[in-house]
Amino acid sequence: MRLDELGEFGFLGRIWPRLRGPDSGVVLGSGDDAAVLAFGEGAYLLVSTDAMVEGRHFRREWLTPEQIGYRAGAAALSDLAAMGGRARGLLASAALPPEMAAEEAEALMEGLDSAASAAGCCLVGGDLTASPGLIFLDVVVVGETVRYWPRSGAQAGEAVLLTGDVGRSAAGLAWLEAGRGMESLPEALRERFLTPQPAFDMVEAVHPLGVVTSAIDISDGLLGDLRHVAEASGVQLSIEADRIPIAEETRVVADRLGLDPMALALGSGEEYEIAFTVPADAVGRVLAAVGEAGARAVTVIGRARAGQGVVVEGAEGLKEGYDHFSRRS
Amino acid sequence: MRLDELGEFGFLGRIWPRLRGPDSGVVLGSGDDAAVLAFGEGAYLLVSTDAMVEGRHFRREWLTPEQIGYRAGAAALSDLAAMGGRARGLLASAALPPEMAAEEAEALMEGLDSAASAAGCCLVGGDLTASPGLIFLDVVVVGETVRYWPRSGAQAGEAVLLTGDVGRSAAGLAWLEAGRGMESLPEALRERFLTPQPAFDMVEAVHPLGVVTSAIDISDGLLGDLRHVAEASGVQLSIEADRIPIAEETRVVADRLGLDPMALALGSGEEYEIAFTVPADAVGRVLAAVGEAGARAVTVIGRARAGQGVVVEGAEGLKEGYDHFSRRS
Repeated sequence: MRLDELGEFGFLGRIWPRLRGPDSGVVLGSGDDAAVLAFGEGAYLLVSTDAMVEGRHFRREWLTPEQIGYRAGAAALSDLAAMGGRARGLLASAALPPEMAAEEAEALMEGLDSAASAAGCCLVGGDLTASPGLIFLDVVVVGETVRYWPRSGAQAGEAVLLTGDVGRSAAGLAWLEAGRGMESLPEALRERFLTPQPAFDMVEAVHPLGVVTSAIDISDGLLGDLRHVAEASGVQLSIEADRIPIAEETRVVADRLGLDPMALALGSGEEYEIAFTVPADAVGRVLAAVGEAGARAVTVIGRARAGQGVVVEGAEGLKEGYDHFSRRS
Repeated sequence: MRLDELGEFGFLGRIWPRLRGPDSGVVLGSGDDAAVLAFGEGAYLLVSTDAMVEGRHFRREWLTPEQIGYRAGAAALSDLAAMGGRARGLLASAALPPEMAAEEAEALMEGLDSAASAAGCCLVGGDLTASPGLIFLDVVVVGETVRYWPRSGAQAGEAVLLTGDVGRSAAGLAWLEAGRGMESLPEALRERFLTPQPAFDMVEAVHPLGVVTSAIDISDGLLGDLRHVAEASGVQLSIEADRIPIAEETRVVADRLGLDPMALALGSGEEYEIAFTVPADAVGRVLAAVGEAGARAVTVIGRARAGQGVVVEGAEGLKEGYDHFSRRS
C-alpha cells in the first residue's frame, strides 16, 4: 500500500505498536502534541518536532524568509502551549539549496529566533545541510511542565473551551490563493497568517488552577483536532456552532470570496489557538484567571458527553462536507 | 553571497551572534554536539538534531529502508555519547514521497527504533509529511547527563584519546562508489557502514571518573572534528599519525582501491567514534576503566599544547574535514 493511500494517521497507527525500544521514562510517546518524558523530580520534559516542506507548508512567493521562519517556529512552539508547557528552547534543522543567498538563510533563522523569543526562549541549536531543490525545515521545540495536558483526559460533563477565534488563517489563505495580494488582506487576518501567537498567555493564566483535563492546538482545523481529543478521551464532544468565535474580518473576507465562514472556522488549520476541557464547575475560575491576566479571550464552545466523535449542533450540513479537513496528511 | 560560498560553518559563525532570544537556562547553544539546558537540580538536558537528505547522506540503491533508519538514528545518538550523555528518546521527522510503500516507511521507522533500542531508549515521537521527491529525514535525540563534555575544555598538557579505529566508513564508501558491491565489502567495514555503534560503552565506563575535559564524535572526519575541539578550547592538538588506530580491513581495501589509508583515517566521517581529552595523569585510570567494562578499545593518539589548530606528526598531507556546503572536499 502506498503511503498516500494509508495516510499519516493510518501509518502512525500501524507503526507505533510494532516498535520495541525500551521504555526510558517515556510518559507519553506518539499521538499527542508533544512527547512527555519524566525528567528529574516532578518535572516533565516536552519535546516535539514539526516538519515543513516548501510548496506544501509555505510558499516563497507569499512570505519572506523571516516570515517563513517565524511561522514555522510559532507552529512548533504551539505544541508546547497545547501541552500546558513553558518553552525552553528551539532547534532548527534545515536543508537549503546551496545557491540560496546567505542573507535569506539568515533571515529564516532570525524569524525562528523571533518566534522563540516571543515564547520566552531562544534558538539553541540545529543542523544545516544542502538540499537539491526545495527548502525542508524541521523545527524542534523543547519545553517543560510540572503537569502536562494530554489529549486523553476529557470526561463526560466537562466544558470545551477555545482560545481566541478560528477561521482567520483559512480565510487569509483563500484570499492569497484567489490571487489577491497580502497587502489588501485585512490586518487581523494578515497578522494571524504572518505572525501567529501560540497561546502561552492562556497557559500561564490557566495552568496554575490545575483544572485542565485535555488540550490540543488547532493546527489541522478545529473539527479535525477536536476529533483527536474525542477519540483519545473516549467521549463525544458536542459543539454549538453559534458559540464558535469568528472574527468580523473573517466574515468579511468569506463574504467577498463567496465562502461560508463557519466552514472556514471548522476547517482552518494553522490557527494555533488551543481547545481544552475543564470540569463544568471550573469554567468561572478559568474565565476569571484569563481576564485578570489580560490573556486572549477564552470561549465555552460546547461540552463533552458519553459517546464518540464530534457533533457540531447548528452546522449539521457542514460536518459531512468538511470531513476531509481532518484527513490532511 | 551564496550559501555554498559561505559554507556551513561560515554561515553558523555569522548567524549565531545575531540571534537575540532570551537565555532560558541554556548552558550551551550552538557549536557543540548537542545543546545543553539546565533541567532540574544538577541535571542537564541534551538535545541534538541531524538532518539527512537522500542522495547526499544515503542512497536507496545501497541501503534498505531499515538500514537508512538505523544509520540515521545511530548518527544522531552519537552526539549524545559525545556529550557524555545517556539517551532518553529519539524523534524522527520525515518528508516521504507519497508513492513510497508504507512497508518501506515502516522499515525506516523500525531501523530508527533499533538504533534507539541499542542505545537504551526508544522512538518517542516525530512528524510525517509528504515530500515531492526525495526523502528528507531529521532525527532528534534527547538525553541527559549530570556532567556534560563540551568541545571547549581541553587544556595544554592533556592527552587526546580516541575510541575504536577510524577510516572504515570512508573505505566502505569508496568501495561502494567504485561500483564494488556491499556483499564483497569486508565484514568489519560493512558493519561500520551499516550498523555503526555510538560509543555509549566508553561513556558508561569513563564518565564516572569525572576526568574528561572535552569530547567530540567523529562525524565529519577526525582531522576536521579535532579542529573544532582545538578552536573551541584554544589549544593546539598534536596528533601522532602512527598512533591513529586503523583496522587491517581498512588498509586492505585502501590498498585494493589505490587509496592512502591515513587519508581515509583522517578524513573519514560517519565513524561515530569519540575523540576526547583527559589530564595526562588520568590516562591510566581511563584505560583501566574501559578494559574492566569490556568497552571498545581506547587509544592515546596525541596531546594538547599551547597554540592552535591540529598538527598531525608524520602525515603532513592533510585532508579537510567535511563541510556540507563546501565544494572543496
